[in-house]
Amino acid sequence: MNAQVETPDQQLRARARRVIPGGMFGHMRSEGLPAGYPQFFARGEGCHLWDVDGRRYVDFMCSWGPIVVGHQHPVVTEAVQRQMAAGDCLNGPSERMVELAERLVGLIPHADWALFAKNGTDATTTCVTLARAATGRRKILVAKGAYHGAVPWCSPYPLGVTAEDRAHLITFTYNDAASLEAAVEATGQDLAGIVVSAFRHDYGFDQELPDPVFARRARELCDAAGAALILDDVRAGFRLTLRGSWDLVGVQPDLSAWSKAIANGYALAAVTGNDRFRDAASRIFVTGSFWCGAVSMAAALATIDVLEAVDGPAHMRAMGQRLRDGIAAQAVAAGIGVRQSGPPQMPTLLFDDDPEGAKGDRFTVEALRRGVYLHPRHNMFLSAAHTEADIDFALDATREALAALAAA
Amino acid sequence: MNAQVETPDQQLRARARRVIPGGMFGHMRSEGLPAGYPQFFARGEGCHLWDVDGRRYVDFMCSWGPIVVGHQHPVVTEAVQRQMAAGDCLNGPSERMVELAERLVGLIPHADWALFAKNGTDATTTCVTLARAATGRRKILVAKGAYHGAVPWCSPYPLGVTAEDRAHLITFTYNDAASLEAAVEATGQDLAGIVVSAFRHDYGFDQELPDPVFARRARELCDAAGAALILDDVRAGFRLTLRGSWDLVGVQPDLSAWSKAIANGYALAAVTGNDRFRDAASRIFVTGSFWCGAVSMAAALATIDVLEAVDGPAHMRAMGQRLRDGIAAQAVAAGIGVRQSGPPQMPTLLFDDDPEGAKGDRFTVEALRRGVYLHPRHNMFLSAAHTEADIDFALDATREALAALAAA
Repeated sequence: MNAQVETPDQQLRARARRVIPGGMFGHMRSEGLPAGYPQFFARGEGCHLWDVDGRRYVDFMCSWGPIVVGHQHPVVTEAVQRQMAAGDCLNGPSERMVELAERLVGLIPHADWALFAKNGTDATTTCVTLARAATGRRKILVAKGAYHGAVPWCSPYPLGVTAEDRAHLITFTYNDAASLEAAVEATGQDLAGIVVSAFRHDYGFDQELPDPVFARRARELCDAAGAALILDDVRAGFRLTLRGSWDLVGVQPDLSAWSKAIANGYALAAVTGNDRFRDAASRIFVTGSFWCGAVSMAAALATIDVLEAVDGPAHMRAMGQRLRDGIAAQAVAAGIGVRQSGPPQMPTLLFDDDPEGAKGDRFTVEALRRGVYLHPRHNMFLSAAHTEADIDFALDATREALAALAAA
Repeated sequence: MNAQVETPDQQLRARARRVIPGGMFGHMRSEGLPAGYPQFFARGEGCHLWDVDGRRYVDFMCSWGPIVVGHQHPVVTEAVQRQMAAGDCLNGPSERMVELAERLVGLIPHADWALFAKNGTDATTTCVTLARAATGRRKILVAKGAYHGAVPWCSPYPLGVTAEDRAHLITFTYNDAASLEAAVEATGQDLAGIVVSAFRHDYGFDQELPDPVFARRARELCDAAGAALILDDVRAGFRLTLRGSWDLVGVQPDLSAWSKAIANGYALAAVTGNDRFRDAASRIFVTGSFWCGAVSMAAALATIDVLEAVDGPAHMRAMGQRLRDGIAAQAVAAGIGVRQSGPPQMPTLLFDDDPEGAKGDRFTVEALRRGVYLHPRHNMFLSAAHTEADIDFALDATREALAALAAA
């Protein structure tokens, strides 16, 4: 009898199944990915990632967004080490909080103030609370299928959620101004705010950039009603621009929710807002044990420094475009229909005639075997650490993966 | 004309008022403290804290709970540095998550599994969602005045919160079994869970340890209804015992929420649960961008090592008792009536005949001037870094502070 030799990843999965529900939870549960994807990771450096089995990948998930200038970036690490040697979690904030708030107010056109939290969901939930506190109204408009967090009011899988948790939500269709108008109409006089994602980045669908007509209409409707236009920039913030993603369509929100990339993987979230919402922001009670942590704020300041120094959004756009153009040519050559959508910094790749996602699964597993970590259905992420050589390495893998798909 | 020389703390407050709502938000806003308390902090080491004006304090707030073995503890720092050099926020969890879940399951009698988050509020909210998911019911019982977080379902200052956010909450009085029975009765057949704090640690009140009769009745009522007994151990966890705070009264919950002290100030929260809730825990969707962060889990493993090696809870109890006994004797000598309540590791000190808190304010400000950071109304926190010499230093300050109060 041959003993089946288990890899470290398999061994960890077996141990995890005993002490972690389902072996893992949330968006990083590998169950949602095809067989062959690792569950456990050991190391990151630049745009490279190593799993616990020692396999190295050029990574296009960037930890699902947070890693924006690359793992172990020396400028970020130096700032973090300096702050850690002083203190992180103290009896109140450090000077870093003021510096970071000043920096965000200086960067982001709509921002007159900032406050800080830990999760993207903290930031989106705070925006909703703020909109209600400032307006004295209750209705919140959200786009159908949009992700704004994993708590009862917005969880995409509402098991354990009550009907009352969503009693004041009304949905519209992203980029459909008429549906937004109808949703506003449905609120009566009770509109507190409209929540919009930076672009339409729903899981498993082609991405859509915001239509400027839609964006301007959202702004007008909020102004007419005295309601809050809330930009959920958690996923896209700092990748498309440092100024807030709707700056690209010339529309400023009242409130923005930030997290993921703002501190290059250190746990941080932020809400920025304008002066109309300053008073309410000073009166609501939102807090957390670690929200004053100075290290993640030092990391954010350093991350902004690096992104500005290298023009991170432009670099990520160029690298994403290089990847996109390469794959497009390869797909034509292989005779395979692909759809690439979303901003180049956050690409989504879906296959034609692939209702079950089998082609996407096969393609990404073939790339994975060749050292390139892609996602078959979710939008991916470039970082400022990706070089032309990394993209070309990835394109060698995608060429072979497409060939394998064509041969199948 | 004398130019008014501003201290660094005053300068930062002025800058903060421009870019942070109200100058600061949440429980660390110094507005809740008497004049003289600093808002901004520079450094921590052991049980000592330095504000931005360079004043050093023996600290009895421990960052409002998280610092449990002392700032910059070498064992924690070493574990953190080792993990940081490998990776923190990757495309999935590291081995540290499995190790920590195994460690918690080994330590905590009721725990068959663990999952991880960032805020204490994440953990309490997940417990409520889990109770509803597992039972298919909606009603959640909470003690009047208890703090379980700062999101709409439980915020103590519900500005921006809708009635529906609390539609399925029913209150009882902590330690009052009859009121708990009445609240269960009021749920009809719709009881999902009962949330209890480790002890009654409401802001501004004398603390109460859990009455074992009340605790056992809570257990029986949950068993009879097939509901979840949820222990909110966010504030007390790891200070009274490493086994879960209600182990001290011989009652095991179904679910526990942990955060604050479990990683000595690194942002981490956990939910532990028993096998009855494992399936539901594997089906609910709870997640966050940084919830797999390996550094905070490495910190938690090291924190547990230190707490076990030095018997942290016993040490904190002894130091807290030394402080309490000393202050009690000083108060008698000064002819001032004080009430000291709560477990010695988490002491609360209130003054007789002090309805407005003026005596508490005066006392703590006098202690602050003498290098001892106390809180006039909230429970305080000992750490394993407090030595007899630190307590005696504090007692010199409290003696003088009481004398100042007696002279006033």
